[in-house]
Amino acid sequence: MPILKAAIIGGGHIADQNHIPALKALSERVELIAVCSRDIQKARTLADKHEIPQAFDNASEMFVGDNKPDLIINCTANNLHHPFSMQALENNCHVLCEKPPAINAAEANEMAELAQKKGKVLAYNFQLRQTPEYSLLKRALENGRLGEIYHIKANFLRRRGIPGWGNFTNKSIQGGGALMDLGVHVLDLALGLLDYIEPDRIIANTYDFIGKAGGKGLMGNWAAAKFEVEDACFAHLSFPNNASITLSTSFALNTKMEKNVNLEVFGTKAGAVLNPFSMYSEMDGELVNMEFPHLEETDIQLKNTIAFLDACGGRASNICNAAQGAILQKIVEEIYKSAAK
Amino acid sequence: MPILKAAIIGGGHIADQNHIPALKALSERVELIAVCSRDIQKARTLADKHEIPQAFDNASEMFVGDNKPDLIINCTANNLHHPFSMQALENNCHVLCEKPPAINAAEANEMAELAQKKGKVLAYNFQLRQTPEYSLLKRALENGRLGEIYHIKANFLRRRGIPGWGNFTNKSIQGGGALMDLGVHVLDLALGLLDYIEPDRIIANTYDFIGKAGGKGLMGNWAAAKFEVEDACFAHLSFPNNASITLSTSFALNTKMEKNVNLEVFGTKAGAVLNPFSMYSEMDGELVNMEFPHLEETDIQLKNTIAFLDACGGRASNICNAAQGAILQKIVEEIYKSAAK
Amino acid sequence: MPILKAAIIGGGHIADQNHIPALKALSERVELIAVCSRDIQKARTLADKHEIPQAFDNASEMFVGDNKPDLIINCTANNLHHPFSMQALENNCHVLCEKPPAINAAEANEMAELAQKKGKVLAYNFQLRQTPEYSLLKRALENGRLGEIYHIKANFLRRRGIPGWGNFTNKSIQGGGALMDLGVHVLDLALGLLDYIEPDRIIANTYDFIGKAGGKGLMGNWAAAKFEVEDACFAHLSFPNNASITLSTSFALNTKMEKNVNLEVFGTKAGAVLNPFSMYSEMDGELVNMEFPHLEETDIQLKNTIAFLDACGGRASNICNAAQGAILQKIVEEIYKSAAK
Amino acid sequence: MPILKAAIIGGGHIADQNHIPALKALSERVELIAVCSRDIQKARTLADKHEIPQAFDNASEMFVGDNKPDLIINCTANNLHHPFSMQALENNCHVLCEKPPAINAAEANEMAELAQKKGKVLAYNFQLRQTPEYSLLKRALENGRLGEIYHIKANFLRRRGIPGWGNFTNKSIQGGGALMDLGVHVLDLALGLLDYIEPDRIIANTYDFIGKAGGKGLMGNWAAAKFEVEDACFAHLSFPNNASITLSTSFALNTKMEKNVNLEVFGTKAGAVLNPFSMYSEMDGELVNMEFPHLEETDIQLKNTIAFLDACGGRASNICNAAQGAILQKIVEEIYKSAAK
Amino acid sequence: MPILKAAIIGGGHIADQNHIPALKALSERVELIAVCSRDIQKARTLADKHEIPQAFDNASEMFVGDNKPDLIINCTANNLHHPFSMQALENNCHVLCEKPPAINAAEANEMAELAQKKGKVLAYNFQLRQTPEYSLLKRALENGRLGEIYHIKANFLRRRGIPGWGNFTNKSIQGGGALMDLGVHVLDLALGLLDYIEPDRIIANTYDFIGKAGGKGLMGNWAAAKFEVEDACFAHLSFPNNASITLSTSFALNTKMEKNVNLEVFGTKAGAVLNPFSMYSEMDGELVNMEFPHLEETDIQLKNTIAFLDACGGRASNICNAAQGAILQKIVEEIYKSAAK
Amino acid sequence: MPILKAAIIGGGHIADQNHIPALKALSERVELIAVCSRDIQKARTLADKHEIPQAFDNASEMFVGDNKPDLIINCTANNLHHPFSMQALENNCHVLCEKPPAINAAEANEMAELAQKKGKVLAYNFQLRQTPEYSLLKRALENGRLGEIYHIKANFLRRRGIPGWGNFTNKSIQGGGALMDLGVHVLDLALGLLDYIEPDRIIANTYDFIGKAGGKGLMGNWAAAKFEVEDACFAHLSFPNNASITLSTSFALNTKMEKNVNLEVFGTKAGAVLNPFSMYSEMDGELVNMEFPHLEETDIQLKNTIAFLDACGGRASNICNAAQGAILQKIVEEIYKSAAK
Repeated sequence: MPILKAAIIGGGHIADQNHIPALKALSERVELIAVCSRDIQKARTLADKHEIPQAFDNASEMFVGDNKPDLIINCTANNLHHPFSMQALENNCHVLCEKPPAINAAEANEMAELAQKKGKVLAYNFQLRQTPEYSLLKRALENGRLGEIYHIKANFLRRRGIPGWGNFTNKSIQGGGALMDLGVHVLDLALGLLDYIEPDRIIANTYDFIGKAGGKGLMGNWAAAKFEVEDACFAHLSFPNNASITLSTSFALNTKMEKNVNLEVFGTKAGAVLNPFSMYSEMDGELVNMEFPHLEETDIQLKNTIAFLDACGGRASNICNAAQGAILQKIVEEIYKSAAK
Repeated sequence: MPILKAAIIGGGHIADQNHIPALKALSERVELIAVCSRDIQKARTLADKHEIPQAFDNASEMFVGDNKPDLIINCTANNLHHPFSMQALENNCHVLCEKPPAINAAEANEMAELAQKKGKVLAYNFQLRQTPEYSLLKRALENGRLGEIYHIKANFLRRRGIPGWGNFTNKSIQGGGALMDLGVHVLDLALGLLDYIEPDRIIANTYDFIGKAGGKGLMGNWAAAKFEVEDACFAHLSFPNNASITLSTSFALNTKMEKNVNLEVFGTKAGAVLNPFSMYSEMDGELVNMEFPHLEETDIQLKNTIAFLDACGGRASNICNAAQGAILQKIVEEIYKSAAK
Repeated sequence: MPILKAAIIGGGHIADQNHIPALKALSERVELIAVCSRDIQKARTLADKHEIPQAFDNASEMFVGDNKPDLIINCTANNLHHPFSMQALENNCHVLCEKPPAINAAEANEMAELAQKKGKVLAYNFQLRQTPEYSLLKRALENGRLGEIYHIKANFLRRRGIPGWGNFTNKSIQGGGALMDLGVHVLDLALGLLDYIEPDRIIANTYDFIGKAGGKGLMGNWAAAKFEVEDACFAHLSFPNNASITLSTSFALNTKMEKNVNLEVFGTKAGAVLNPFSMYSEMDGELVNMEFPHLEETDIQLKNTIAFLDACGGRASNICNAAQGAILQKIVEEIYKSAAK
Repeated sequence: MPILKAAIIGGGHIADQNHIPALKALSERVELIAVCSRDIQKARTLADKHEIPQAFDNASEMFVGDNKPDLIINCTANNLHHPFSMQALENNCHVLCEKPPAINAAEANEMAELAQKKGKVLAYNFQLRQTPEYSLLKRALENGRLGEIYHIKANFLRRRGIPGWGNFTNKSIQGGGALMDLGVHVLDLALGLLDYIEPDRIIANTYDFIGKAGGKGLMGNWAAAKFEVEDACFAHLSFPNNASITLSTSFALNTKMEKNVNLEVFGTKAGAVLNPFSMYSEMDGELVNMEFPHLEETDIQLKNTIAFLDACGGRASNICNAAQGAILQKIVEEIYKSAAK
Repeated sequence: MPILKAAIIGGGHIADQNHIPALKALSERVELIAVCSRDIQKARTLADKHEIPQAFDNASEMFVGDNKPDLIINCTANNLHHPFSMQALENNCHVLCEKPPAINAAEANEMAELAQKKGKVLAYNFQLRQTPEYSLLKRALENGRLGEIYHIKANFLRRRGIPGWGNFTNKSIQGGGALMDLGVHVLDLALGLLDYIEPDRIIANTYDFIGKAGGKGLMGNWAAAKFEVEDACFAHLSFPNNASITLSTSFALNTKMEKNVNLEVFGTKAGAVLNPFSMYSEMDGELVNMEFPHLEETDIQLKNTIAFLDACGGRASNICNAAQGAILQKIVEEIYKSAAK
Repeated sequence: MPILKAAIIGGGHIADQNHIPALKALSERVELIAVCSRDIQKARTLADKHEIPQAFDNASEMFVGDNKPDLIINCTANNLHHPFSMQALENNCHVLCEKPPAINAAEANEMAELAQKKGKVLAYNFQLRQTPEYSLLKRALENGRLGEIYHIKANFLRRRGIPGWGNFTNKSIQGGGALMDLGVHVLDLALGLLDYIEPDRIIANTYDFIGKAGGKGLMGNWAAAKFEVEDACFAHLSFPNNASITLSTSFALNTKMEKNVNLEVFGTKAGAVLNPFSMYSEMDGELVNMEFPHLEETDIQLKNTIAFLDACGGRASNICNAAQGAILQKIVEEIYKSAAK
């Protein structure tokens, strides 16, 4: 298999800490040839630190000449997921784009259509798919231990976790708040258990009381006066096969746990909780609780990057693909629409 | 204040264990003069055991002659809540009716209208309103500690609690399953925190997989072949003021806890959990968790009977009144309708 | 099925508290017609208390006349298990004899031979077979969840539990100490998991240091000067199929727990612990721990008496039968022989 | 006291991480002059890393010339413990040999005889003797707190700890499995409490079900097809003074704890548990449990190396000496023989 | 030994629940012949309930005629301890008086002097001396395990335990508040460890903030407006041998535990905590914590009544005697004096 | 604001680990120009390590020439706090002196007077004032949540924490033992809650049993033969407003916890415990416990150095000032006087 050439767009923390180390660790499959950032100084610093040959401040320059990338990692702000991914696809690159897919459904759709037209892989970096807990949950489901799943509670809740840095409270850049940044992760996991079918009914409510009121922050201090997004979102999704999902996500909520990321899954034969992974079922005529105390920690970014590369190489893979991303973004948009009623 | 004369209709467990002892303990305010059951033997046994002067097998007989009751406790099956309560109201009695109010919205409405026309108290026995935890929650809300409540998670979940006795799985008698028997309790509590306003949007799903499949029971063994109701129900209610409720209730669900009856309440200034009662807020610039380890146990049926008698005497009371019962029943009906889509 | 006539021999605590209540609760299957005790006053008191028609102080008298018993419950001291059970069998009665079967192997053998010759049921009251934990363990084994069992640790340990009453420290009456009184229970359970095959190699050690030294007692105070039996016994049994059992039992031992009654079972596919019941295995490629938090309490004497009556009626039953009792007693004897080397 | 010259034979992990750092930390008593490994590259790398002057791939070369070692640390594979220790003794060196002493009793005996003939110290690296818990246990025993020890349960159990590296499953190199690698540690500790007297009766069973079946590993993945040793061993040892030891050891066993290394010691006056250290006794007429929460962590290899150097210098020391090693190896051989019956 | 004749003065809860049952249980040593209460109806009810032959409402009547009591149990209010005990002593009766001895030092002194003059036993019912924990503490001290005790923290603290009944907040009847009712118990225990020597320096502070402010009560509701005593008292006592006691006692205090009754004892060789009993010392060169998990519950009133009867019979006894009572009352008075400075 | 020039006197651990890093981190406000130690080599090593331009072994040399310090950090032994602080003040420097202020009240008084005369800041490094717990306690007090504080228990207890290094057991250098080294910290915190008013009554006892007896040490081994100070001190302080403090401090005490540093504060409206911070009060008619699980760790030395610099700059600050230090030292002296009675 030939070694693919990769370039990074976006020079922030997630490039530096997650994507570049993963690519570097996979040097037998991928070669990181360039990094691009609006701020050329940032691009150069990253390139030096990680021994990447080229640094750009204009993505267009990467796509000219002989040494063009085969794939792009798009680590830009949410509102730039669409333009840079489109540009990369136009230039016949595979794309691994950070989540959420885009800031609205139309963008995600356009991106998926172009990927299909170009015959390139467009994928989204929902790396929580790669935890040992979710892998085990999928295996248990495939082995029939859960029976048919009919209800899922998907939670990504923070007590006071409005980041005090970045653009997390800016609606035009982010496209939304807790749902767009956090809720999409557990929504993706939940949809993945239901074969990513589309819901036919959605109802939702969003709130911004705490974000606008201000107060103690556990992830730095945020500017209450500039808080433009939802700090909490609660939704119910119903599917054509009568399955349902209750989604709860927050940047800030008056609740006990500092952070609560979890799925509760209810199947006809067993139920499961993701963190810590456990199952609830019947065995030999008695109710049984199962725990798995020896799951081993995993580098989930590394595993997700491998899944992307596998997809690029035409192999089966559990990466979030372009079609799934478009469905997810459509659901997100419908949640916001319902909440606006 | 004159002593009121009371009669019981329905000779089952709840009459024997809850209502009769409560009435007996309040002998300075109420005199229990009769008990009525379809099965005259049951009526007589109860009357003997509790030293009640009269036993009937026909409710009509109670309302003739001089020694007529001033109030009726309706402890019959769900589908008899309407006929016996109507009869009692027609005979100018106050009525304390067991929950749920009725088996559909039309019945509950009719009952409320007749009560109003007759100028009599019609009330429902949602005795969980009287726990020290809910009382404290209401006081905290009234004292402004929670700010404005915008989201409530209301749970009444059993892991394998389909009763192996009675009519709990018979749809025509009960009107429904887990929602009708269990969910109404926490729905009543949640609505009570929102001033019992009516939701403008409802979505719900119901299931009967485990009930129909059969298996290990923790409340006796149920007949899977005759299981006609929902074993689980999940709903989302949205209100005109943008508040929302997530309601989850089950007779049977593959989950860890044998029984989980709780409210999680999210307000602009604090959140609260009902059991064990705790609050989550900010104080002096830091996040604070509050626990109340010294709440004293209460006889909640006694307190609810007192609340009913207070209402009969024209005093303010936190009893569930006829209008609230009609709203609740309407919501239940809409939940079932949504789930049937 | 005809109602069997039963008589009790031995008027102590175990007759009064365990066997008589069980027989009385099974009045549709068995009628308790007599109680016999060396001390006629004891016999009469028991008879009066439990409304048993006849009281004797000489067992022979019970077997004359028309109203003879069909079955005998032998609740006498260990050294009387043999003579009274033999007498009952000779008189064509089924026998449920308290544990241990006898005070040596020859007695137990003789008893089994007579039962076979007479075509009567001779059974031993190892009622721990009837706990929900052991029942579940047997079911799990039969369903193949454990694979093949190859090692068992069987413990019945008390820290300072030398009874201060009765004959527990008298060797000629009891036949032995901790092994004879306590260890036989868990030995029976362990053998029951291995189809009661006989071991081909045994090594054991017994001790009496604490019993002879005296000290603080948690079951009354014992007479150290008259302590004639072992206070602790440790044995290793090896079976022809290479399975093995480590048996540990004590009346008194310098250990943490006041009482420790347990089996640890190691199979090729899973291991199990009896109390609280749990299993340790692999599932979907991960190590799993299983707990069963909803096992329901059982009246184990009642269940064991039913098992005995089933056997008397010719039905399959999990009662400890005469052949098993003889094997068990032979093993006990070999343990003592090994310890005496 | 003159500084002794030391050489290491065997260039693996245990040399690099344990023995060399200990010797380096004791530079006022010992000088590390050479390291020898079959693989000269390995030898040189180690020598460079730790600033050791000489590197060899042939042990014979170390013993010629002026700068010969006074002592040898033998860190080779089990089957090389004998040849290299013999060679070192022949060359008048003291030897600290890794455990187990050898792969059979004859080898260990020959080694002990040669050491005696040469007047040199031959010792084995059972470093668990140096934990603060075992030291305290020995002191408590010497101070009479336990009275006379009559039974010991010695456990070294792993749930799924078959190492996926090295030669741990190769019988000809290792001489055995869990017993040879793990069980010898706790057997040495237990024998040390009984003055290393020899047992007069042994019974044992060994198994290899899980090792041969394969499955999830917690110490890497092992090759089930090449698994030649026991994965579990259970033995009972009886001593002339009637003391007894129950030994349980496993590489793989369906049990709860990932790793369980412990002694339970039962004495006439008190019992003790090694980890965490605790004692169970009587005091002032009541049963007492004693805990020692402030034991300080120790560098057990350093302490064992000091004990060896003390022995070399003719001072009293708690190192495992040649005679003890020979007894231990004889017991191991008898355990295997009993298990093979 | 002759059977003593006893009479009870005071017909309240403590007579009915504690003293009469204890006397009844000791019928081989004492015969309860009369009960006396200001309220003759109360006296008669008690006499009937417990089958006591005589009932009086005037204590003087008991001391005339032939059938006079040998001993008196004084269960009256604090301010009647002195007059009734004096009367009983004058009439040549032994006296077991409830705690505190009296409401000031002069009274207690006078009582002690009269007892001595009359040659009768005057004792106080500090029954906490009889707990298994305090007995063990005394034994440990006598056996030298604690060395010399130099500091004691004595606590009897309630969070909100101002009794809503009785005279507990009335200064003229009770003589004081928390110290007089609760603190005296642990002060007696602490003094008992120091051989009841007298302190030479005392400093104390008392408070009544919560008592006077009112609020939530956990022992009924008290009348804040009539609260005349201290709700908390903190004192430091220093003794001629340089030992010291820190005494803390409260009816009401903003603290976590609902009730905290304990001694912490610091000796030169070990420290001890009373509840649950534990010791902290050194053993074999390490710090050791000792727990005693098997202490058996005791009927402490029964044991204290036996101790009193032993004293009456001239036998050694650990009852609180008249001299100790006088010392205790003097210390209490000095604490109040110091607090008033 | 001009950058102040700072010099360190005393080259020990606390200079190296605490003060120098704090000053270095505040380079925008202070410049560290010199370090002085009796041992010039120590001074030079510190200077090199932290890039401080000058090193002295004679403090006088620092105060000559142009480049004189504006402030001095006095990290010397207790008995040098006075001479070096006086010298620094005489040379018109601000002084941050380590705790305790001095070794007697006269010294501390003299220091305070000179500071006032010179118009310079003299402050003491009680850095526990800067913990998030104490800050929150002060805020809660200022916001009225505690009402009026009337009793404080202040503890700084070690089980076996006599340092095996330094001069901690030398009376002439240290001025005392546990009180002088540890107790002063919590005494300062407690006084800070009472506006640093002076007590009008004090009783205390001190002990040295364990220190003089020797034994196991948890902070190295101390020389029992040279132990000259108190190992434990218990005191009661009473204030003119009737508030009181119970102070307990020890280097060595037979108690459970290895280290116990805490305040328990009792106010009229609420009580508080410092570690972990919690409050006990009433809310909405019920007793409430409040916990604050999200307090963030703080660099308390850095915060205290900032507080000192603020004071030097004439800004309000919570640093322990010269007047407070003098009061504290006077109380310490009176405690020792009382203990010597």
